[in-house]
Amino acid sequence: MTNEAIRMESDSMGDIEVQADRYWGAQTQRSLQNFKIGGEKMPPALVEALGIQKLAAARVNRALGQIDSKIAEAIEAAAQEVADGKLLDHFPLVVWQTGSGTQSNMNANEVIAGRANEILTGKRGGKEPVHPNDHCNRGQSSNDTFPTAMHIAAVREISKTTLPGLSRLQAALAEKAASFNDIIKIGRTHLMDATPLTLGQEFSGYAQQLAYGVKRIEGTLERLGELAQGGTAVGTGLNAVEGFAEAFAAEVSSITGLSFTTAPNKFEALAAHDAIVEASGALNTVAVSLMKIANDIRLLGSGPRCGLGEILLPANEPGSSIMPGKVNPTQCEAMTMVCTQVMGNHSTITIAGSNGHFELNVFKPVMIYNLLQSAKLIGDASDSFRSNCVEGIEADAARITALMNESLMLVTALNPHIGYDNAAKIAKKAYAENKTLKQAGIDLGLLDEKQFDAWVSPADMLGPRKA
Amino acid sequence: MTNEAIRMESDSMGDIEVQADRYWGAQTQRSLQNFKIGGEKMPPALVEALGIQKLAAARVNRALGQIDSKIAEAIEAAAQEVADGKLLDHFPLVVWQTGSGTQSNMNANEVIAGRANEILTGKRGGKEPVHPNDHCNRGQSSNDTFPTAMHIAAVREISKTTLPGLSRLQAALAEKAASFNDIIKIGRTHLMDATPLTLGQEFSGYAQQLAYGVKRIEGTLERLGELAQGGTAVGTGLNAVEGFAEAFAAEVSSITGLSFTTAPNKFEALAAHDAIVEASGALNTVAVSLMKIANDIRLLGSGPRCGLGEILLPANEPGSSIMPGKVNPTQCEAMTMVCTQVMGNHSTITIAGSNGHFELNVFKPVMIYNLLQSAKLIGDASDSFRSNCVEGIEADAARITALMNESLMLVTALNPHIGYDNAAKIAKKAYAENKTLKQAGIDLGLLDEKQFDAWVSPADMLGPRKA
Amino acid sequence: MTNEAIRMESDSMGDIEVQADRYWGAQTQRSLQNFKIGGEKMPPALVEALGIQKLAAARVNRALGQIDSKIAEAIEAAAQEVADGKLLDHFPLVVWQTGSGTQSNMNANEVIAGRANEILTGKRGGKEPVHPNDHCNRGQSSNDTFPTAMHIAAVREISKTTLPGLSRLQAALAEKAASFNDIIKIGRTHLMDATPLTLGQEFSGYAQQLAYGVKRIEGTLERLGELAQGGTAVGTGLNAVEGFAEAFAAEVSSITGLSFTTAPNKFEALAAHDAIVEASGALNTVAVSLMKIANDIRLLGSGPRCGLGEILLPANEPGSSIMPGKVNPTQCEAMTMVCTQVMGNHSTITIAGSNGHFELNVFKPVMIYNLLQSAKLIGDASDSFRSNCVEGIEADAARITALMNESLMLVTALNPHIGYDNAAKIAKKAYAENKTLKQAGIDLGLLDEKQFDAWVSPADMLGPRKA
Amino acid sequence: MTNEAIRMESDSMGDIEVQADRYWGAQTQRSLQNFKIGGEKMPPALVEALGIQKLAAARVNRALGQIDSKIAEAIEAAAQEVADGKLLDHFPLVVWQTGSGTQSNMNANEVIAGRANEILTGKRGGKEPVHPNDHCNRGQSSNDTFPTAMHIAAVREISKTTLPGLSRLQAALAEKAASFNDIIKIGRTHLMDATPLTLGQEFSGYAQQLAYGVKRIEGTLERLGELAQGGTAVGTGLNAVEGFAEAFAAEVSSITGLSFTTAPNKFEALAAHDAIVEASGALNTVAVSLMKIANDIRLLGSGPRCGLGEILLPANEPGSSIMPGKVNPTQCEAMTMVCTQVMGNHSTITIAGSNGHFELNVFKPVMIYNLLQSAKLIGDASDSFRSNCVEGIEADAARITALMNESLMLVTALNPHIGYDNAAKIAKKAYAENKTLKQAGIDLGLLDEKQFDAWVSPADMLGPRKA
Repeated sequence: MTNEAIRMESDSMGDIEVQADRYWGAQTQRSLQNFKIGGEKMPPALVEALGIQKLAAARVNRALGQIDSKIAEAIEAAAQEVADGKLLDHFPLVVWQTGSGTQSNMNANEVIAGRANEILTGKRGGKEPVHPNDHCNRGQSSNDTFPTAMHIAAVREISKTTLPGLSRLQAALAEKAASFNDIIKIGRTHLMDATPLTLGQEFSGYAQQLAYGVKRIEGTLERLGELAQGGTAVGTGLNAVEGFAEAFAAEVSSITGLSFTTAPNKFEALAAHDAIVEASGALNTVAVSLMKIANDIRLLGSGPRCGLGEILLPANEPGSSIMPGKVNPTQCEAMTMVCTQVMGNHSTITIAGSNGHFELNVFKPVMIYNLLQSAKLIGDASDSFRSNCVEGIEADAARITALMNESLMLVTALNPHIGYDNAAKIAKKAYAENKTLKQAGIDLGLLDEKQFDAWVSPADMLGPRKA
Repeated sequence: MTNEAIRMESDSMGDIEVQADRYWGAQTQRSLQNFKIGGEKMPPALVEALGIQKLAAARVNRALGQIDSKIAEAIEAAAQEVADGKLLDHFPLVVWQTGSGTQSNMNANEVIAGRANEILTGKRGGKEPVHPNDHCNRGQSSNDTFPTAMHIAAVREISKTTLPGLSRLQAALAEKAASFNDIIKIGRTHLMDATPLTLGQEFSGYAQQLAYGVKRIEGTLERLGELAQGGTAVGTGLNAVEGFAEAFAAEVSSITGLSFTTAPNKFEALAAHDAIVEASGALNTVAVSLMKIANDIRLLGSGPRCGLGEILLPANEPGSSIMPGKVNPTQCEAMTMVCTQVMGNHSTITIAGSNGHFELNVFKPVMIYNLLQSAKLIGDASDSFRSNCVEGIEADAARITALMNESLMLVTALNPHIGYDNAAKIAKKAYAENKTLKQAGIDLGLLDEKQFDAWVSPADMLGPRKA
Repeated sequence: MTNEAIRMESDSMGDIEVQADRYWGAQTQRSLQNFKIGGEKMPPALVEALGIQKLAAARVNRALGQIDSKIAEAIEAAAQEVADGKLLDHFPLVVWQTGSGTQSNMNANEVIAGRANEILTGKRGGKEPVHPNDHCNRGQSSNDTFPTAMHIAAVREISKTTLPGLSRLQAALAEKAASFNDIIKIGRTHLMDATPLTLGQEFSGYAQQLAYGVKRIEGTLERLGELAQGGTAVGTGLNAVEGFAEAFAAEVSSITGLSFTTAPNKFEALAAHDAIVEASGALNTVAVSLMKIANDIRLLGSGPRCGLGEILLPANEPGSSIMPGKVNPTQCEAMTMVCTQVMGNHSTITIAGSNGHFELNVFKPVMIYNLLQSAKLIGDASDSFRSNCVEGIEADAARITALMNESLMLVTALNPHIGYDNAAKIAKKAYAENKTLKQAGIDLGLLDEKQFDAWVSPADMLGPRKA
Repeated sequence: MTNEAIRMESDSMGDIEVQADRYWGAQTQRSLQNFKIGGEKMPPALVEALGIQKLAAARVNRALGQIDSKIAEAIEAAAQEVADGKLLDHFPLVVWQTGSGTQSNMNANEVIAGRANEILTGKRGGKEPVHPNDHCNRGQSSNDTFPTAMHIAAVREISKTTLPGLSRLQAALAEKAASFNDIIKIGRTHLMDATPLTLGQEFSGYAQQLAYGVKRIEGTLERLGELAQGGTAVGTGLNAVEGFAEAFAAEVSSITGLSFTTAPNKFEALAAHDAIVEASGALNTVAVSLMKIANDIRLLGSGPRCGLGEILLPANEPGSSIMPGKVNPTQCEAMTMVCTQVMGNHSTITIAGSNGHFELNVFKPVMIYNLLQSAKLIGDASDSFRSNCVEGIEADAARITALMNESLMLVTALNPHIGYDNAAKIAKKAYAENKTLKQAGIDLGLLDEKQFDAWVSPADMLGPRKA
């Protein structure tokens, strides 16, 4: 690297070389060098949230007379670029850094100052006239800033990806439930043949699971919407000014169009991230639901000749290179893999959340990394599963009817007419001799064909009887 | 065993010997013999819930004209005994049985029939005049009965043990927060000395965590209160009568004094147990909170001479057999062990919940076993921790003040007066030469004693400043 | 309770009443009163291990001249009774106590002293002539004693329950693999029809999984066999005598007939329980294997009419009360529930293991409680699954052959003869028109009946071809 | 995009546009479009392993006469580039695809064919003369290829990153243990003051944990070294030639310089990934160890004035923007975050591993994604923690000695001289009156100064006494 390609930046530990085309400063550079661990960068959604956080802080600081207007305007312009995801290349730090996220907060402060200085002076980087700490971080500490960004990022990702994706999938399943309403099929409990239900009823259960899933996730937004900002270093708010916290939350609400409030107890908001654990718990429950649904759908679609074969899934890609005509339930597989990831992420978040000490939990980056991954994966996978699988599901009505008519469990309908014991005899004979129930019943002299046809009607077995 | 000590019971697979003084019948006996796995019996809270479920079902069946009054009365009397926990010795089955809980449902049917028959005829056991299936299980299936009992048991345990225990602990912590309100201490972030806060503020964070924890758990009661009863075998309600489900939920509400409704979609209620996963998720979040709190408390109380020693925990039992005078934070240890158990139980419940197939999830016993254990442990441990530890915590105010006065982070208060850089010089000199901040400041000629005393006032560092 | 029914015991905190017929003393009694949490008692296998530990310690202390022979003999007799499980009623403490297990170690010391005193004087309890600390705990600390008992209990349970049960199940699966060797069936990948294999090959995979599982568990015995005894309070061995640790390990090996050594680093052995985490990890892997196997078996046995129906599982108990003739794969269900429990226990153990501080991990009771539960459940469930399910599995050869012959994937065998593209045309036509491959091939004019029969031979598709 | 910028590729589902400068073909392109989920690409280590796998397969196919030499040479050249990580930009697929990894296997086949064709013809892409399936995938199926690549990638990452990193950290801790051998300090059990040990002894426990950790991980390499290759579609090896599997494993060993064998049972190797679960279990155990070590180190270094302060950690970056002079244990924080990630990844892997069906586990991508992340993170974090923290740790000997001399637990040394009860009196008086033990003992008339100095010698409390 030639001299032209670098510039010097400094912090309280001294000078350090930075690549000249980067906006960041000394503290970001130091973190880059001290934490060569893995390759998982701080998630873009979190970087954008830091942009929103700095934007809101600058506006409030200006309004409260804490920063000069010209400085504030430059900060706001630069922060807006961060919020818009335009400067992601200038956020090189990995998740595995200081547990308070201080280095990413400083990364934001340095990049915004560096860009604001460029706006004001034409010269990139540095601390003049806009200072990373004195201006960009004004009245703030990493300890309240980073958890604030965590909550902003989580609420945004859940609101724009998770919930819409999940709701669309829920609607698609409900639509399938409606369209399959007249298809009577064998029920299966313990994986064994049971009494009938409609394919629509079966799908209605899936739709119900996700309707509840949406509610479960929505239920976490209230506490996720509480912001730590204003607590500064340990929760007391030292060096912040009165009113900053409340005005800040209002400003973030305004910027994002989402609902945020200032956390009523800042000590809790810095030292614990229970709201993140809670949100992850809701995503975990939804993953449990989606795992069941995707598993059922691939089992129902198993075959084409040697499985259950009750439904047909869309064929989106060629199957095996060795077996012509093979089509696999690949969307179900992507979905179930996502579900296992979300469950494991929940373990990580749980353990990380439980390990705070005194005034600070220092597992912040790993917690938000996992939560954002879970939130995005659930949303994306729901959309992919919906559009590439669920919407294209067709019932094989002939196969469904054929299977149902073979079922021995229809014998249950005979109980009121010939008694449980006689019904059992018919079922056992039919099974042992591989006959139909009707034939077994006639052979046993317990009923005739007409009676059987009158009594055994799957369509009458789909709900409770009149009292 | 002599002939006098046994009686014969039978089911569709034939006769089987049962110990004469037991109320149970053939199916319970078969399960006992076929599942010799571990020793974890179906939890008493679940057995009692089955009693409540059978009691409510019998009442509703009587009201709807499905069972003869005399039979119903005997069933109700027997079911009440089960609900009161009087017949626990007659529920010998382990958790590791059929995944639908059928065998425990049959255990309840058999014991209640056996006891009802004794009431009516003086003869224990059997199927006359009260039949386990035809009467006790009337209009029911294990597939709706067992999940109904799961929800009843969960709501009851949470309502009577978890929430009260947690609320009492929350109140105790809030009271400590109030009483410690004037004790200014060093804050600690990253385990390192930071700016001051009060001991009351620190405890207020704990109280806030648990106030939210109570809300989190309460938020699960709505869906836990939805009962599967009325879905029968696969969710359709086949063989139940119209109105049974709704009347049943009302009856259970009446019996328990708690709020229950009939599940709006019975397919979901049999095939998935997302409400159990959700409730476990709330308990998991609370375990995360309690882990943090108990850990902090034992760290704050560490010593007596070589630890932090800011608070004193009650000495409840002699310490080491080898080290006289040693007192250990044993209540914190019991609590944190409980927390790890609850987190692991949550993993079990998550995995089990995700593995349902079609119309039935067959991990019901393991799910409720773990949920009830978690609910009880959180409640009990909260009470033990409160009464044997939290309520007796005392602050060592002298030690707290001495530590705080040594802290270099008080230098932060000098920033507005002599600037960040000069303040930093003082802090570094004080640390390097093991001096007080005041002395270092004077040595550097940056301030005099009077100024230092005026400017560095921990009591002024406890909140935001006027704007 | 009348005065006759109690006696007074004392410790350094003063006097306390104990039920007169109990052997325990003051410290056990205090723990009973201070830890009213849940109902999970210290596992019997751990109590027995404490008996073995005290027996070995007394013998070594006698041999090394640390205890008078008469005292030692009485201790040994009492400890033997504990080791034999005869005094379990005198070990009332729950898991949720001090995290070092001190109170259970004192429970053992008190019961053994109390019983030894009875042997020597006819009077139960007390500290004369045998003292719980000075004699029973001689040269020991709870901090080395309890982890020693943990390892002894774990090695014993694994050796006598887990490994034998698992090996027997492995053998039963291998036997089924051999007996199913000639049954050619459809393979299934992605749950979709694939190329054929034999049912024996399918079962050979299960047998291989468990053969490896046995090795995985055996691989943990070396480090589980390392005993902490001799480390005393912090790992230095203060107050123990030289040679005690080594002689003790030899004595335990002699008593149990299993291999134990003294841990080479006692600091690690007290402060960390990585060997417990490691052993749990092996059990977790085995649970993963068993989950797959039990799931496959219930899917293969699904039906009887509307599932895969390739194998028949033994009918051990009547099925549904509402559906005559229903038989469920209940042993698979018990097994898979056990697997989820073992996985969750592994989470608990992992979290607990990671939370030690300095010279002591204080999550000992919860770690051993979960490990012993996992070890026992795996062993017991393997036996139950084997004897009540696997050994009775029969193949439905007719069904298997019928399904296989319908499979479109047999078309793969045509590739070398008519090319992949032509083979694909046949498969697609057969599927679209619901024909056999042979008919589709003839219709397309790509082959004749004789050629098809010669080329498509499932028996030739079961292994690699000659090079 | 202009016409010049794209080219057409095709598969059995028809034509599809591909960006002209990419080597991939139709199936890769389809996966890109069908799986817009998250952003986690297939890990580079896995892509490189696919390169190695294709290279070895081509060499063996050439040797066995299955592929023309000229074709094989071009494939080998292209595969070598993939193995060297030169074509990573041509592997755009995410983890969340088909669960068999088929699409990534086809990605490798297509890129290698496309590059080989460029080598041979100068024209990028296509299927002539080198065909992705017929040549690159010759005698292979995704079902054996992908798990083979999983094992190759895992063994390589563990061998080149995890084990070296861990071993270096182990050595650094052992070196610290040696250098701290003479520093006597207070021991802490239950976080409370206990009997003394040396700082070297304390660190020796950490070193022992990691020495075992290395062994634990090494113990998984045997089964990770078993390769599925040769099993083809369902494990039978259909369409492979005899000898291919064995020659392939030898070739991979030769290429990598690591030990690989052919899996003895291919059904197990395709349908289960227990070896991955097992390896993850070992990493999980190591994470537990590292969590304990990093936690201890930050606690020992807590302060500088108000914590334990026994050791000094290197100051790598400026501390708080608000608190001058603050230095945080950031390397400990990065490490403990990594540990929680590894534990959560283990949950994901466990659940995914348990969910295979019949002849195939279709959670392959998520399993290897998590395992490789864990393996890399452990290795990288060990190096970062070692070089940026452990190697620079210094003991604050003065502080350590001062603390130790204050400890009341030194009283334990008086037991043999004045008895336990008198020693206890001294300890209690010293604590209650905030005196030294010596003063309390003199005040009580139990000893004189000379006796105290002779009897209470921490240096004599560091090991067992002579028998």
